[in-house]
Amino acid sequence: MPNSALLADLYQLTMLQGYYEQNMEELAVFEFFVRKLPENRGYLVAAGLAQVLTYLEQLQFSADEIEWLASTGRFKPAMLDRLEILKFTGDVHAMPEGTVFFQNEPLLRITAPLPEAQVIESRIINLLHFQTLIASKAARSVLIAPDKLLVDFGMRRAHGSEAALLAARASYLVGFAGSATVAAGMYFGIPLFGTMAHSFIQAHSSESEAFVHFAEANPDHIVFLIDTYDTEAGAQKVVDLAAALHAQGIKIKGVRLDSGDLADHARKVRNILDRGGLNYATIFASGNIDEYKLEELMAEQVPIDGFGIGTHMDTSADAPYLDCAYKLQEYAGIARRKRSEGKATWPGRKQVYRNYDDNGVMSGDTVTVDNSPCAGQPLLHLVMRGGKTVARQPTLIEAGEHARRQLNGLPASLRQLSNTPEYPVIISAELQALAKIVDEQWAFQV
Amino acid sequence: MPNSALLADLYQLTMLQGYYEQNMEELAVFEFFVRKLPENRGYLVAAGLAQVLTYLEQLQFSADEIEWLASTGRFKPAMLDRLEILKFTGDVHAMPEGTVFFQNEPLLRITAPLPEAQVIESRIINLLHFQTLIASKAARSVLIAPDKLLVDFGMRRAHGSEAALLAARASYLVGFAGSATVAAGMYFGIPLFGTMAHSFIQAHSSESEAFVHFAEANPDHIVFLIDTYDTEAGAQKVVDLAAALHAQGIKIKGVRLDSGDLADHARKVRNILDRGGLNYATIFASGNIDEYKLEELMAEQVPIDGFGIGTHMDTSADAPYLDCAYKLQEYAGIARRKRSEGKATWPGRKQVYRNYDDNGVMSGDTVTVDNSPCAGQPLLHLVMRGGKTVARQPTLIEAGEHARRQLNGLPASLRQLSNTPEYPVIISAELQALAKIVDEQWAFQV
Repeated sequence: MPNSALLADLYQLTMLQGYYEQNMEELAVFEFFVRKLPENRGYLVAAGLAQVLTYLEQLQFSADEIEWLASTGRFKPAMLDRLEILKFTGDVHAMPEGTVFFQNEPLLRITAPLPEAQVIESRIINLLHFQTLIASKAARSVLIAPDKLLVDFGMRRAHGSEAALLAARASYLVGFAGSATVAAGMYFGIPLFGTMAHSFIQAHSSESEAFVHFAEANPDHIVFLIDTYDTEAGAQKVVDLAAALHAQGIKIKGVRLDSGDLADHARKVRNILDRGGLNYATIFASGNIDEYKLEELMAEQVPIDGFGIGTHMDTSADAPYLDCAYKLQEYAGIARRKRSEGKATWPGRKQVYRNYDDNGVMSGDTVTVDNSPCAGQPLLHLVMRGGKTVARQPTLIEAGEHARRQLNGLPASLRQLSNTPEYPVIISAELQALAKIVDEQWAFQV
Repeated sequence: MPNSALLADLYQLTMLQGYYEQNMEELAVFEFFVRKLPENRGYLVAAGLAQVLTYLEQLQFSADEIEWLASTGRFKPAMLDRLEILKFTGDVHAMPEGTVFFQNEPLLRITAPLPEAQVIESRIINLLHFQTLIASKAARSVLIAPDKLLVDFGMRRAHGSEAALLAARASYLVGFAGSATVAAGMYFGIPLFGTMAHSFIQAHSSESEAFVHFAEANPDHIVFLIDTYDTEAGAQKVVDLAAALHAQGIKIKGVRLDSGDLADHARKVRNILDRGGLNYATIFASGNIDEYKLEELMAEQVPIDGFGIGTHMDTSADAPYLDCAYKLQEYAGIARRKRSEGKATWPGRKQVYRNYDDNGVMSGDTVTVDNSPCAGQPLLHLVMRGGKTVARQPTLIEAGEHARRQLNGLPASLRQLSNTPEYPVIISAELQALAKIVDEQWAFQV
């Protein structure tokens, strides 16, 4: 199902019916880019390419799907015959996952016969948009709290199961330590973290009894949730139990706070633990955390060692979508351009070049016509040729290392959580000239 | 995959390890509710129950999943043996999909042996939260523009594929005419709508040629996208082509606007179409539409007949999550209560009763202890017994009829898009008394 060819908008299929009838199967070039960064985003981080490549390799209409399409009465037999054998046979150029990028920069370019490049439109956007959204949101927490253990806690309020899994992946990509979502451990090899819920405490006749039962059942992974009734009293119970648990060979790893004034509770709990000889026990906090809250807690040097970050990250709550698009830039060798008001695009196949200053800090990008000379490092690379992924793609861990290096190269001004300046993205003279030519040709043809 | 038992947070499994070791398998009662409505939401609409019931019926750890869990080294053989045979054998009480509800009202109650009721926690929240979020958002557009054709256009920026499918379902449930997402047509029987993309126009050497090709390929479903280059010029081309198409037996259904000042363009396009003899052709608009924009366009009586509503609805952009919870309210016959600061819950099994005034308008709800006498209509009904869905559940169309009746019963003040008053939800004296007893018992036990 995640890779069903029916994950498409209806117009893609009605357009294909037109393309096939007119034998419009020349090579088309589409690019995916973000028009404008959301408010309070100084940069974005590319993510989702691995899922795009899998989708393209597996693209196929099943017999059931063809039969259902036939039953709608919208499609002619010749069209259905074509869909039955449709595969993706094109090329893909892309920024590696973890690459930092900015407005108007294509992060993916598809070159394929027009019907193939069109039928994948909505799912390509769906896959790249979401993981890029979450990687970009999660990176903000990583940069604000680089020395803290950050864990994705967002499954329950992520928008569906795929969002939960891909949010775990996207946040791990940019430096989260792991996720609480078990399926993300199995599918992506992401380290798992977890403590206990209030219900575990409530189901027992006392909090201490619940702590003991949990410790005996999970002796190697003990983080006690201490806020079910009274946070500081909970911390004291942990201290009181420590000696007995220790005698059983069980060592307490830490405690979790999930409500109230986290800064105030963390300081009091730190004192209680330290006075009780548990200076090794860590404090983990959750509940409505996002990068803004993190920044506050870091500024106050609150003694919290790790954070569970859920809803705000998995829904990218302060910016729940990106203004992104997948647009036709060339067909049958001729550059094309959409000119709709406020939504005009730069035509043709493009490449993005990045420049750095002497300290390795990003100093400006140029978007230009592909294969035209330009200073800087090219960001788009061939990753699929003729429908087959080329060479070995980076593992998630390798992609994470790339993301770390990329984030390290960000100018300080862009790391701020708000009031970030716009990073310089230059549209090259060559590209501006091409746009002019395309406009003139269009004026002539109409 | 959508129903994998690993769609859980790790702590659910570590807690289960504790429950099994302590033979804590008495009946537990959990309830799902929303603590507080988001700003600018006067009501919420329950949705997602159908997916919850399917998930519960299918709940099972596969052999691969058990093997993978074993490989993590976190779980004891006795625990894995239990997971291998785990099924959901409990009861479910719920508000039917499409029911309007408010703060602190349980919309789902699970009664099952503690491990079963705990292991489903995150996926239950994940399923109910998202569809309820989207149904509640979509209903706002339906109530603002009851006579317009509203279509879900949100797949591309929905958070993953499941979100796209379930957003199509949730919006259809509350009165959208259908969706552009093809898979939603196949899986849920939702009517499909679509036009053409800018790329179709751009791939042709002229806009008129693109219109003709599209019309020949899809003679029964012609909505021309006219803003690729110049909206009014596009409308004029449609008029110019109409006679020739008509001669071929092809009738133009309408046009779509997707950029610029929609009100201004719609008026001009309406004039062009009417003067050209196409007064039957409808105007459909898309691009950044939400209920606030709809309200504006409706107030100005802009001649637009239908709207494609995408990103803002499918991400519930102005309120991308609900403050919801799934909490233990009773275990082994004893009512329980979480008392964390700002997150305390009402204990015990509950029922919600609704009262109406003489005009059939909702006048106030009461949340009370289940089976205690109360005026009004009870909203929670038994839908699953012993792990099997009872009787026939409503079809999506029947659920939609229920939603329509529910929305018709909303007080006018709650239909406003902002500054809505809080609907009266009374916590009954019985429930307050129970909370007091639970607190006293707890004070005694600690």
